[in-house]
Amino acid sequence: MNYYAAPIAKLIEEFAKLPGIGQKTAQRLAFHVLNLSDEKAFDLANAIKEAKLKVKYCTNCGNLTDINPCSICISGHRDKTSICVVENPRDVIAMEKTREYKGLYHVLHGAISPMEGIGPEDIKIKELLLRIQKGEIKEVVLATNPNIQGEATAMYISKLLKPLAIKTTRLAHGIPVGGDLEYADEVTLARAFEGRHEI
Amino acid sequence: MNYYAAPIAKLIEEFAKLPGIGQKTAQRLAFHVLNLSDEKAFDLANAIKEAKLKVKYCTNCGNLTDINPCSICISGHRDKTSICVVENPRDVIAMEKTREYKGLYHVLHGAISPMEGIGPEDIKIKELLLRIQKGEIKEVVLATNPNIQGEATAMYISKLLKPLAIKTTRLAHGIPVGGDLEYADEVTLARAFEGRHEI
Repeated sequence: MNYYAAPIAKLIEEFAKLPGIGQKTAQRLAFHVLNLSDEKAFDLANAIKEAKLKVKYCTNCGNLTDINPCSICISGHRDKTSICVVENPRDVIAMEKTREYKGLYHVLHGAISPMEGIGPEDIKIKELLLRIQKGEIKEVVLATNPNIQGEATAMYISKLLKPLAIKTTRLAHGIPVGGDLEYADEVTLARAFEGRHEI
Repeated sequence: MNYYAAPIAKLIEEFAKLPGIGQKTAQRLAFHVLNLSDEKAFDLANAIKEAKLKVKYCTNCGNLTDINPCSICISGHRDKTSICVVENPRDVIAMEKTREYKGLYHVLHGAISPMEGIGPEDIKIKELLLRIQKGEIKEVVLATNPNIQGEATAMYISKLLKPLAIKTTRLAHGIPVGGDLEYADEVTLARAFEGRHEI
């Protein structure tokens, strides 16, 4: 049965399509939007349209950007001899927030996953090789996720880079800062032990 | 520091303004929207605009509607001698979902709350009296919330209606269906005991 006026039902339906938003939350959001002033509600609608229209992928590194090439690619302050390879644009933000890395990025837009039918040609590995072949690059940091797909992707790329004699690194595994030994899983703990260092 | 392109930052900011949506969820929603096809993202933006433009309050009962008077007010299948008084349009939906009530509604858009400076003249009590004075109405169900503000509002309205000799009722209090006696609070349990009936 239809309890809502059609435009409200449509709005709830659209909100409920968002990840992590269930039917109840979608209703709450819809009624919140209806309670907003026209101006504030349109701000949200326009932000969605603006973002979709203006934000594209950088043709160089594949990161999300509103200018092309992106601000990281054209920055004069970044180390242009280093590329950090990540699976998606959110990982770029995560790396940037560390303020440790000063080089360039390359976004693969996925990871190799035979189970899901995603092969090396489905992600931006070819583009990475083209960038590396232009010279300049001295180190490639393979920062794909520490799961099966990410590891497989890192292995695949590292094998491709071997003949080029470029330094290829992988992020360290270990126990998270602030973590608890007791609750660390065995694999992580084993990797942390392997990677132990003198103090 | 600004890690996001301006339109992405704006979109995250707008999502984060919604109730129950924190910074992390706003980021996740923003990246989800950026990953959608243009068409699907615009569907969401347009649903917001459409709802804001088309949905207004029914001038008769105060419910949210895209036609005026609303579908409940003009329906031929509703009992026009009964008015259910609720605090907000969400309560209309809640009542409708029971499929028990077949009368009309009146949305007060709030409850009397001296603490928040909301008096009887700030909610739609005057409009309710005008509707009742037109005749026809035989029963007024005061379905304001079972909290201090809702109770005060129900008391206030029932006193106003007393001289009109209209049947005024309040929803029953008691233990929720599927609830547990052990976990019911004392006030609810006491009300349930008061309201006991023969079987």
